[in-house]
Amino acid sequence: MIRAAIVGGAGYIGGELLRLLLGHPEVEVVASTSARLAGRRVDGSHPNLRGLTDLVHSSPDALPDCDAVFFASSGLDDPAQRAALASRAKLVFDLSADLRLTDPALFAKHYGAHPTPDLLGTATRGLPEVDRAALRTANLVSVPGCMATAGILGLRPLVEFIDGPVTVDGRVGSSGSGASAGEMNLHAERANVLRVFAPLGHRHQAEISQATGLTVRMTATGVDAVRGVQVLCRTQVRAGVTETDIRKAYRAAYADEPFVRVVAQKRGNYRLPEPKILLGSNFCDVGFALDADTRELLVVGALDNLVKGGSGNAVQSLNIRMGWDERLGLGFPGLHPV
Amino acid sequence: MIRAAIVGGAGYIGGELLRLLLGHPEVEVVASTSARLAGRRVDGSHPNLRGLTDLVHSSPDALPDCDAVFFASSGLDDPAQRAALASRAKLVFDLSADLRLTDPALFAKHYGAHPTPDLLGTATRGLPEVDRAALRTANLVSVPGCMATAGILGLRPLVEFIDGPVTVDGRVGSSGSGASAGEMNLHAERANVLRVFAPLGHRHQAEISQATGLTVRMTATGVDAVRGVQVLCRTQVRAGVTETDIRKAYRAAYADEPFVRVVAQKRGNYRLPEPKILLGSNFCDVGFALDADTRELLVVGALDNLVKGGSGNAVQSLNIRMGWDERLGLGFPGLHPV
Amino acid sequence: MIRAAIVGGAGYIGGELLRLLLGHPEVEVVASTSARLAGRRVDGSHPNLRGLTDLVHSSPDALPDCDAVFFASSGLDDPAQRAALASRAKLVFDLSADLRLTDPALFAKHYGAHPTPDLLGTATRGLPEVDRAALRTANLVSVPGCMATAGILGLRPLVEFIDGPVTVDGRVGSSGSGASAGEMNLHAERANVLRVFAPLGHRHQAEISQATGLTVRMTATGVDAVRGVQVLCRTQVRAGVTETDIRKAYRAAYADEPFVRVVAQKRGNYRLPEPKILLGSNFCDVGFALDADTRELLVVGALDNLVKGGSGNAVQSLNIRMGWDERLGLGFPGLHPV
Amino acid sequence: MIRAAIVGGAGYIGGELLRLLLGHPEVEVVASTSARLAGRRVDGSHPNLRGLTDLVHSSPDALPDCDAVFFASSGLDDPAQRAALASRAKLVFDLSADLRLTDPALFAKHYGAHPTPDLLGTATRGLPEVDRAALRTANLVSVPGCMATAGILGLRPLVEFIDGPVTVDGRVGSSGSGASAGEMNLHAERANVLRVFAPLGHRHQAEISQATGLTVRMTATGVDAVRGVQVLCRTQVRAGVTETDIRKAYRAAYADEPFVRVVAQKRGNYRLPEPKILLGSNFCDVGFALDADTRELLVVGALDNLVKGGSGNAVQSLNIRMGWDERLGLGFPGLHPV
Repeated sequence: MIRAAIVGGAGYIGGELLRLLLGHPEVEVVASTSARLAGRRVDGSHPNLRGLTDLVHSSPDALPDCDAVFFASSGLDDPAQRAALASRAKLVFDLSADLRLTDPALFAKHYGAHPTPDLLGTATRGLPEVDRAALRTANLVSVPGCMATAGILGLRPLVEFIDGPVTVDGRVGSSGSGASAGEMNLHAERANVLRVFAPLGHRHQAEISQATGLTVRMTATGVDAVRGVQVLCRTQVRAGVTETDIRKAYRAAYADEPFVRVVAQKRGNYRLPEPKILLGSNFCDVGFALDADTRELLVVGALDNLVKGGSGNAVQSLNIRMGWDERLGLGFPGLHPV
Repeated sequence: MIRAAIVGGAGYIGGELLRLLLGHPEVEVVASTSARLAGRRVDGSHPNLRGLTDLVHSSPDALPDCDAVFFASSGLDDPAQRAALASRAKLVFDLSADLRLTDPALFAKHYGAHPTPDLLGTATRGLPEVDRAALRTANLVSVPGCMATAGILGLRPLVEFIDGPVTVDGRVGSSGSGASAGEMNLHAERANVLRVFAPLGHRHQAEISQATGLTVRMTATGVDAVRGVQVLCRTQVRAGVTETDIRKAYRAAYADEPFVRVVAQKRGNYRLPEPKILLGSNFCDVGFALDADTRELLVVGALDNLVKGGSGNAVQSLNIRMGWDERLGLGFPGLHPV
Repeated sequence: MIRAAIVGGAGYIGGELLRLLLGHPEVEVVASTSARLAGRRVDGSHPNLRGLTDLVHSSPDALPDCDAVFFASSGLDDPAQRAALASRAKLVFDLSADLRLTDPALFAKHYGAHPTPDLLGTATRGLPEVDRAALRTANLVSVPGCMATAGILGLRPLVEFIDGPVTVDGRVGSSGSGASAGEMNLHAERANVLRVFAPLGHRHQAEISQATGLTVRMTATGVDAVRGVQVLCRTQVRAGVTETDIRKAYRAAYADEPFVRVVAQKRGNYRLPEPKILLGSNFCDVGFALDADTRELLVVGALDNLVKGGSGNAVQSLNIRMGWDERLGLGFPGLHPV
Repeated sequence: MIRAAIVGGAGYIGGELLRLLLGHPEVEVVASTSARLAGRRVDGSHPNLRGLTDLVHSSPDALPDCDAVFFASSGLDDPAQRAALASRAKLVFDLSADLRLTDPALFAKHYGAHPTPDLLGTATRGLPEVDRAALRTANLVSVPGCMATAGILGLRPLVEFIDGPVTVDGRVGSSGSGASAGEMNLHAERANVLRVFAPLGHRHQAEISQATGLTVRMTATGVDAVRGVQVLCRTQVRAGVTETDIRKAYRAAYADEPFVRVVAQKRGNYRLPEPKILLGSNFCDVGFALDADTRELLVVGALDNLVKGGSGNAVQSLNIRMGWDERLGLGFPGLHPV
């Protein structure tokens, strides 16, 4: 049993961390911080947790010593506080974008100048399917972005087959904008949208590129959903690459993975990955279609942005780090229909 | 051709007034005011109007003289400004709740003390099916609330049959909360809800009661829609009242009405009123079901809260006042499917 | 470890039974029958179960002997087959409406004549909060209807306070219509609806009345959701009944219940029960509002129609029958936001 | 005043034709045919038309002579009937896919062998912005596909700037599947989806390619909407092409078009085309983003699939053919918010 704390527990990623960790048999949640809601009940922020906890948000200044701390919000505004908070625990899981990129120039292009660029490159990426070995000993883990996770898991096993740039069409629900978003997330404005909020150069392209070595060009659209990410990645394969090659590569990468499923069927409503059936689950489904004549390849990835795209990856990384069964606390499979 | 202006043109009711009046063959829109967005294009607030107008929001202080002014927002905060604005036009259509109730005590109970209670009772209600005669000469018109309109139109022809109190279950989309609503209207919180925001005593019960003489007890639920109102009114009928009686009463009231349809069929997906097919239209559909054995009566009303529940009633009232065809500018019938 | 089978495993209730039982530490699922899809993979019907099971639907005729069988579909069409299937297991959990009512005449009024009316009254109702003692020894359990469960749990502790009939306004998502529904459930027709499909006398009023002794008058509306039930129950309380009385009665009934929460706060987006945050969970939230002056009482109940409104009640009943921890297999708390 | 008839008036495209033509000042609707629903009221199929018409569907065999006939459903199954029906009117507007492609081999690849391939190439395409001159004298008009219309209008003015293939990511609501679709369109299955139903080679790519000369590779996704199409077209521009070049080309093409708006702003929720605000309208909005460094171009097009993507294009084509104001009957601008 370890003691864990969440910094930024009132947000949506924070809420999912709380849900997963409160249900985790080896973890005791000792604190959830929120500057804005300190002193208020956690289940006031996350009504799904009623009856599961009497925890009250505390001020970030009051973070107790613990074994693991999860940063559910960015610390860029106050690097000193960030450092102070990180010093409270042996293990730090950072779910913000602060440490995802290793190149300061690239970081600056997408997020603005990093206040403490020396930190870039010091964290282990928390993508278990790729980084499992390193995670076994990592004390500072940076959890990748939601759409980046779907893109990386879909593309990485196929890198050797790909010939040319990849365009990524990301779709994401409104929870990706966070719990304190402004007028653009007003229900009357945000419902029923197909909002191309990042027509070119979405931030997550840098992460996918960093993880795969591919040239990635990414567009992102907000869709009428609260949760869920789907990425469509289009590219060309080298001459001679077959569907069998791709299935083999996926099998080699994911046959033993507990949270990646290859979904590429010939028929059926759910023949390709779709977030609808993944809400609340830690699965990332990946699939593809190939036109051998034109060498067109479409790779599709889907996940719940708040779980496998954030909190679930963090908890899975914790499980690896602690040597526990990787699936602890992550057993919910998703719903159908929903 | 008359000159019309909208006070509060950046809001959702204001936007619908603009849509209807810009398409009205006898009206020229000369101003839309917005304290917050003065100087910004109207189609920046209402992107559906792109290509239809180059109008720019002006400051309320700059309201020009015109023939008719529409108040799309409450003037309670600044009664002096309200009076100044009203003085700019011969005809005033007030779409706020400011003048809907005639009894100051009742107003205070539901909205707080009225700053200028002498104004209560001075306006003609803008519900054409009930108030047509008075509207022909009215210079100050108060447009009723969206759920009140559906409830009054559904119940009023049946008043003599009803024996006992009426419970009203109102359901309303998020646009009813306005364009500047706060965290409760964040998409992630407001999507997929059945939010009983007024468990007892919703404000519109006072309006329905005032218009029908019935004892009304009203609950309201926010549903996962942007537009649309539906009210379910349950009551008992007097002994001996039959379905035929009710159909006759509705026919007598509405056979010649251009914007009320009686929808009470025995089968079919749309056998009772439903807002889905009314979006953008000025129809109010009313229907009912009666159990002659138990004397239970259910009355159902539906409309678009921003049109027949607001801007459309105002434009129809204007048409009556001017002696024009009542349907001018209100021809859109709604969509199916949608 | 017991052996369980599901009859009608391709439907939506069947799918949820599979999800819950596949994750149950004391249950082995040995069969899922489907006349239509025999020979096809279970995860073809329920894509959320991919990776969790390789089970294949079998013909109902091939049902193996087992410890517990769950009927997820009605057996009224073929009572002989029903009897044959029931004979395969010591414990039978019937999730259809076949055995819910005890009075043959009442059954006939709502569902048509029962082919084997002698069966009525032979089952123990599977509503743990009410029937726990009887469930400990029951071999034939009838799980109540989804809206009935919400209504009974909301009203039952308050029966002594209630003075007069209760009107129930039920709202339900499309999954309640089942996996093989026709044109009325086409997405283009069913999306965005507020469809009053049962204006008076909905079937579940008989169940609520049977369980509470109250006179119940029930209306039902299909709303734009896949899952979820909410009931609003309106009635009058006796003179002198206070909010404190009601809170005490609920506390007495539910303080120790693992799956009923009393939600009746003064503010907040989620101050009253709402299905949004209950999807996939076995909670039934109940709450109320009281106007002491008018003696109006509103009781609100919410749950996931496929879980606490069906499969979850069945699994909880099984847990009780077996003497296990009642919460086994039912740990998922629901999501926020979603 | 001309006499018009709709073949296939019970479907969704047929319903929109009825809505538009019933509101058209120069058209009398004399018949709506439906083999399945002959003898039933038109407003039973399209409840939004209640109060606007007493028309009853007739059998296709009973089609009267008229001035214009609109085919809202395919005639491929029965070419003889098709010919018979076409002979009833001087002007034929075909809204099916039957005549959209001119090359029989290409048609066969996407739709199967054409029973009467000689018909291919005999129709004038009904895309007013491109085909206006030809439409003035056309007696047989083939209305393009919904996603094809958005793609062609977005790409065509930019053809000379484009260097390389274009990938098109189409998104479409459920009404595109028609009014008699099967299980895949059940609400519980179709709600909340991001369903990649055509991962590669969607049919409309052939139409876009035919109209632009570009190499087009098209993917299509069903989204959680009833109406609406959005296409995202990604490609490379030639070296030196600037944003100004693109704006100029769009302006040259569309400055005088009544139903195409260029929407490419730097900020705002609606800075790029989005179907949300186009429901019911005949607008096609087109926009773009260009990264001059990487030469990436994203073109976005949006429309209502049943209006500008079908019935609206047909009515606009009729207006042109008859020499009327092109906007007759097409005045509805769309709603905000919705």
